[in-house]
Amino acid sequence: LHRPGPAAAGWAQDLRRSALEDMLVATARPDVISLALGLPCEDLFPTAEMGESVARVLASEPRALQYAPPLERLREFVAGLMETRGVRCGPDEVFLTAGAQQGMSLLTRLLLDPGATVVVEAACYPGFLQALAPLSPRIVAAPSGPERGLDVDALERMLASGLRPALLYAIPDGHNPLGVSLPAESRKRLVELARGHGFPIVEDDAYGRVSYDDDGAPALRALDPEWVFHLGSFSKTLAPALRTGWIVAPARFHRALGSLKESTDINTTTLGQRAVADFVARGLFEPHVATLRAEYRRRRDAMLEAIERELPEGSRWSVPRAGFFTWVELPGGADAMAVLRVALERERVAFVPGEAFAAGDAPPARSALRLNFSHGSPESIREGVARVARALGAVSAREATHG
Amino acid sequence: LHRPGPAAAGWAQDLRRSALEDMLVATARPDVISLALGLPCEDLFPTAEMGESVARVLASEPRALQYAPPLERLREFVAGLMETRGVRCGPDEVFLTAGAQQGMSLLTRLLLDPGATVVVEAACYPGFLQALAPLSPRIVAAPSGPERGLDVDALERMLASGLRPALLYAIPDGHNPLGVSLPAESRKRLVELARGHGFPIVEDDAYGRVSYDDDGAPALRALDPEWVFHLGSFSKTLAPALRTGWIVAPARFHRALGSLKESTDINTTTLGQRAVADFVARGLFEPHVATLRAEYRRRRDAMLEAIERELPEGSRWSVPRAGFFTWVELPGGADAMAVLRVALERERVAFVPGEAFAAGDAPPARSALRLNFSHGSPESIREGVARVARALGAVSAREATHG
Repeated sequence: LHRPGPAAAGWAQDLRRSALEDMLVATARPDVISLALGLPCEDLFPTAEMGESVARVLASEPRALQYAPPLERLREFVAGLMETRGVRCGPDEVFLTAGAQQGMSLLTRLLLDPGATVVVEAACYPGFLQALAPLSPRIVAAPSGPERGLDVDALERMLASGLRPALLYAIPDGHNPLGVSLPAESRKRLVELARGHGFPIVEDDAYGRVSYDDDGAPALRALDPEWVFHLGSFSKTLAPALRTGWIVAPARFHRALGSLKESTDINTTTLGQRAVADFVARGLFEPHVATLRAEYRRRRDAMLEAIERELPEGSRWSVPRAGFFTWVELPGGADAMAVLRVALERERVAFVPGEAFAAGDAPPARSALRLNFSHGSPESIREGVARVARALGAVSAREATHG
Repeated sequence: LHRPGPAAAGWAQDLRRSALEDMLVATARPDVISLALGLPCEDLFPTAEMGESVARVLASEPRALQYAPPLERLREFVAGLMETRGVRCGPDEVFLTAGAQQGMSLLTRLLLDPGATVVVEAACYPGFLQALAPLSPRIVAAPSGPERGLDVDALERMLASGLRPALLYAIPDGHNPLGVSLPAESRKRLVELARGHGFPIVEDDAYGRVSYDDDGAPALRALDPEWVFHLGSFSKTLAPALRTGWIVAPARFHRALGSLKESTDINTTTLGQRAVADFVARGLFEPHVATLRAEYRRRRDAMLEAIERELPEGSRWSVPRAGFFTWVELPGGADAMAVLRVALERERVAFVPGEAFAAGDAPPARSALRLNFSHGSPESIREGVARVARALGAVSAREATHG
């Protein structure tokens, strides 16, 4: 008698490795210029200062490696930091996490009952969809575009037609993948819809401080301290491997968040969190962010100039006011997956095609691509965009011949 | 019109702060000897060596703070380490986590469909029940005791009566809270039951290497590489704040585990993991474990001698071959919560009463208590047990008077 081995739960059996994932493995090859991933630039990490912070922590805190409750002085610092995002909150509203991704994981489990409906933007950060997968909610995509972000008019019509979301997920600043920041007027109306229809917003602000204008709009949380759950992170401003981020949420949810966090990885202060707390206590954070913003702005400008110069007429792209990405819509219905194939094989350049960000029932953006400008130097960005343009040219010529 | 604010999901609304939790807050007072928590001793942490490891990593790895896939050399080390637990496995079966608790969180979400039944021991580690809470499974408690651990005969009868678990959770070595290790014959039969009835076992081996006999039984995973999912951790052998542990599971589950981990906190190598990898690469791990075992054995012996000397006739307790705890059953049906109240107020000593570990439909162990011997010195352990005995004496005298 053959007995089969253990089986994964239903949601996990549905996981498929996509052709896209297989292709993106190729982006790790050293001869490929990658505009694909969303990595911060490691040359900009404050590695030496962080090493000093670890050494200081280990020398001065006998219990630095012990189980310990969340670090009060880091919560206080984050509460102050939120003022730079227009948000007034107390340390008792700051819940520390192992990064913004963990914030998503905790908030989806905190807020969703079985069978719930979740609204996301039609081009959606895949990590949020991954967090939803084990919960199997109904996913509804609201229209969103690279020029104005989430289409609040369309959302209002959907709500008027009976949509009853248990939560809405949005990236109002430096949108991943669209590279857009939501206009102030849309923010105001979005929060009014949340209040009026009674659904919480999960605001992903991972890129909020990596902004290229001095006058960015305040975070959604600035407009409503009750219905907006705000996610922040030091992954883009300090370094990802420290795994330190936060949720800003009404204090009455912190007990349940604490239980969820404890069940996920023990709600204990990590060495990374202690190092971050020491780093910020030394006054190093704001000067570091200023350096980052200047350097990433230089890279953004290099990319926008190259796109303007290299891509064919009829292309459209976002002009990011924050974040790591721009989004390009190719003219003539070009097939971005076909372009990626040629780009990888002949031109040695990688990007992520728009369809990788498809959510729910929204039609995938087959003629779009996401380009990253945070990781490479301005020179490699310029060369990378030129290669993408050549790959697009080759695909267009082939289609003209065959079509 | 008053609109209420957002509401948490059903499972979170059921969370209640217990009287016990309120009482245990008092254990943090400096004048209280705590035998309550399960902390490793921070004087035994390899703090200086770990600081050197962090410095070496930051100096030698330019991408040490960047997003990075799981650290291959740490997976290889863990695969080798598993041989000390009798387990043969390859690095491709080792999945790195942020500690054993995260392993529980990932495996429960990997293996449980809605409405599943989970079998736990009647005295259960509360962190596992916390991981189950958002999934709302049916929880069935199998009898388990401080002398022989999980009652495999009783489990067999439950299975014969139609019990169909989706998984069983067990701590075969250094049980928390029972302080017992499962006899070899029970291990063999338990694994046969899992194979025969087709349910996976989640084996929590957080304490497996903190053992006081040279000839501990091999882990359950040594008996079956298919039905046993094994959880390991460096939290007890190195330090908790590094948040580094692992799952040993068949390689075919790693894709789904990777997706779950990515959605939980990004599946990226942390600074803590790199430091641990450097520490073990320098050959420091096994000598350190030998030191720990000797010191914790000394503390265990101090506790057992004090219990023997101080507690009244008719008391029964486990003699731990591994782990951080012993479990005491008080004579005459004494009320452990009443003893705790007196212990805290008059004697300034804390422990965790047995009912804190009640699971599913099992009757709570009202006359039992869990005592920790890893955190305090032998002197404070002796003094702590004497104080517990005095508190018990006071409660017994009061009951004799009033009853």
